[in-house]
Amino acid sequence: MTILEHPPAGTSNALVAPPGLKGVVVADTEVGDVRGEEGFYHYRQYSAIDLAVSRPLDDVMQLMIDGSLPTSQAARERFAAEVRPLRPIPTELRELLPVIAAAGTPMDGVRTALSHLAAVRGLRPVVDLDAAQRRADCLLVSAVTPTLVCALHRLQAGLQPVEPRDDLDAAGNHLWMITGRDPSPEHVRAISAYLVSTVDHGFNASTFTARVVASTGADVGAAIVGALGALSGPLHGGAPSRALALLDEIGTADRIDAVVRPLIERGDKIMGFGHAVYRTDDPRSLMLRDVARSLGGPLVDLAETTEGRIVALLDELKPSRQLRTNVEFYAGVVMETCGVPRSMFTPTFAASRVIGWCANVLEQAAAAKIIRPSARYVGPVPPAPVPPIGE
Amino acid sequence: MTILEHPPAGTSNALVAPPGLKGVVVADTEVGDVRGEEGFYHYRQYSAIDLAVSRPLDDVMQLMIDGSLPTSQAARERFAAEVRPLRPIPTELRELLPVIAAAGTPMDGVRTALSHLAAVRGLRPVVDLDAAQRRADCLLVSAVTPTLVCALHRLQAGLQPVEPRDDLDAAGNHLWMITGRDPSPEHVRAISAYLVSTVDHGFNASTFTARVVASTGADVGAAIVGALGALSGPLHGGAPSRALALLDEIGTADRIDAVVRPLIERGDKIMGFGHAVYRTDDPRSLMLRDVARSLGGPLVDLAETTEGRIVALLDELKPSRQLRTNVEFYAGVVMETCGVPRSMFTPTFAASRVIGWCANVLEQAAAAKIIRPSARYVGPVPPAPVPPIGE
Repeated sequence: MTILEHPPAGTSNALVAPPGLKGVVVADTEVGDVRGEEGFYHYRQYSAIDLAVSRPLDDVMQLMIDGSLPTSQAARERFAAEVRPLRPIPTELRELLPVIAAAGTPMDGVRTALSHLAAVRGLRPVVDLDAAQRRADCLLVSAVTPTLVCALHRLQAGLQPVEPRDDLDAAGNHLWMITGRDPSPEHVRAISAYLVSTVDHGFNASTFTARVVASTGADVGAAIVGALGALSGPLHGGAPSRALALLDEIGTADRIDAVVRPLIERGDKIMGFGHAVYRTDDPRSLMLRDVARSLGGPLVDLAETTEGRIVALLDELKPSRQLRTNVEFYAGVVMETCGVPRSMFTPTFAASRVIGWCANVLEQAAAAKIIRPSARYVGPVPPAPVPPIGE
Repeated sequence: MTILEHPPAGTSNALVAPPGLKGVVVADTEVGDVRGEEGFYHYRQYSAIDLAVSRPLDDVMQLMIDGSLPTSQAARERFAAEVRPLRPIPTELRELLPVIAAAGTPMDGVRTALSHLAAVRGLRPVVDLDAAQRRADCLLVSAVTPTLVCALHRLQAGLQPVEPRDDLDAAGNHLWMITGRDPSPEHVRAISAYLVSTVDHGFNASTFTARVVASTGADVGAAIVGALGALSGPLHGGAPSRALALLDEIGTADRIDAVVRPLIERGDKIMGFGHAVYRTDDPRSLMLRDVARSLGGPLVDLAETTEGRIVALLDELKPSRQLRTNVEFYAGVVMETCGVPRSMFTPTFAASRVIGWCANVLEQAAAAKIIRPSARYVGPVPPAPVPPIGE
């Protein structure tokens, strides 16, 4: 049990939370939860892993935004009919996207593009909207974000963006809009599992950012733009390609010990291992390992051998740490195998996580309570006299 | 004392915070503090009100970013020599600003413009920067934000933006860049007091957003873009023009009771009255009332008469509430009197608050600890079986 200290003298009406608010419940939620001790997480009442292997991303979007899964093709089609027109590249961004793409990464670009789109479409403060209007804004932002990150990627690569196709689901479209080639059914299945498994994961920093912004009554665009900024932080969304870089450095299975042992002995963080919440296997890692196995290939073989050896080395050299692979290790392997370039790893994460952010924004907007914590001042005692300006 | 409930069975390692994290200390800070019970707030060791009436905004920028006030003209000039080149409209935004301005409000626009600028200037994650590099990014963002909001305003009004002038201080430039006219010394003094008094104010929602984003190691641009989104929320930065709208509706002093009494009796919120933190007079309101008096004029007279009458009516009709004017009431009066258009009230707030956000980002970046709270799941018990899709 975390102990919250009582406040120092003079700080009334306050309790001191542990650093980073770790373990502090800041809200009630019906969106989902992470049970770190059990290695289990869920979206609403369903296991996220069950959903990842059985339902396409659009079904899970309906679950997260509307609260329930479609149980018939007709219900699925009704939702698709709403979402499909929101997927194409917005006409208001066509001229701007090349300028935005030239400026920075797709993560930078989607932040700028969504900020502009929210303005030009006149997204209104959630506090001034009814539930149906908030939902409409969330559908727009969730549907268009994958299109934007893929278009920005192609522009940066000197290619023309391609429009989403109605004959492909969200995962198929994601691969199509990146590569411009018909995706294989195996790759669509693999990327679908990845996308569904990353839709939501508790009150992580980007989700919490979205909720803090939404708590001020700001529009859905402002909340998602804020969350994109948080996800761009290397301590949050920035590591999937770094885990793969380790496999690059290893190169062949006979070099694992030579590369990894010095890292562990120096106390370096091993990319792709360890998680702030899970004390056991990361359920996303287990599922994505299965997905990777179903794809096969030399990178998958190297990854499995490396994982086994790193776990053994960690058990030998850091027995108290209990470090296991996290979502990033096999996510990188799966995306690389499916032809997603490394520069698109974090933007692909954003393309599904935006759905979870929106579900949280809708819940926060309904709460209509501003998030405003306190701090403990530890600087020199005020008020000091303001010094004069000399010559 | 706020009571943190103990967690329900099954929620291990958690304590339940009050709604909106009210009264929960989430960090130690040396940036400043608000003592709501005393009606006192400070930036580092100095009373913010003392600073507002004795120091220009650039001195306070130096205090917040570098930690100390200049005490000589030479020190002031060294800082000015760093900041001055950062103020003009960035060349990379010249072509884009008219497009951005046409899309929405200056608050929308500055969010988009700063997002793009951070990308095109290649602002790097704070986690990868040393203190000097982080400071340089904060100086850029703090110096250019006032220029951007004023340029966006002029473009929306069909006017050419004007560049900041070296012969004016930050407050003088703010008025010059809005109106394109030489500002009077009285107006510069008044706006300077307003700008300095709104640089920082505890862990409000926008400041907290900046800190959550920075806690992921993201770049300064991402943090400030997130904070701008939070400030755009009507429950946070959106009310200064609404307080003035009440004075418009009243029109003449003889109509105060007729307009206000029904509002109070209906239990409506009176714009410009009451604050989440202050239980006494808002020190910003007292200071800005003095500033307004020094400016004089019919609007100021009406505001003072109205304030007195509303306080009396509130004491009569809601004696338990102890509502007094907040910063917004006289802020609107001062800005209107100095020629700041109402559409620029919240952007003007942003133009000074960006300095406080940056001071908080620098502190949070140095802490290098991700902010990731928990939530309490209250939905249907998982795992439910994923239903099949029927015809």
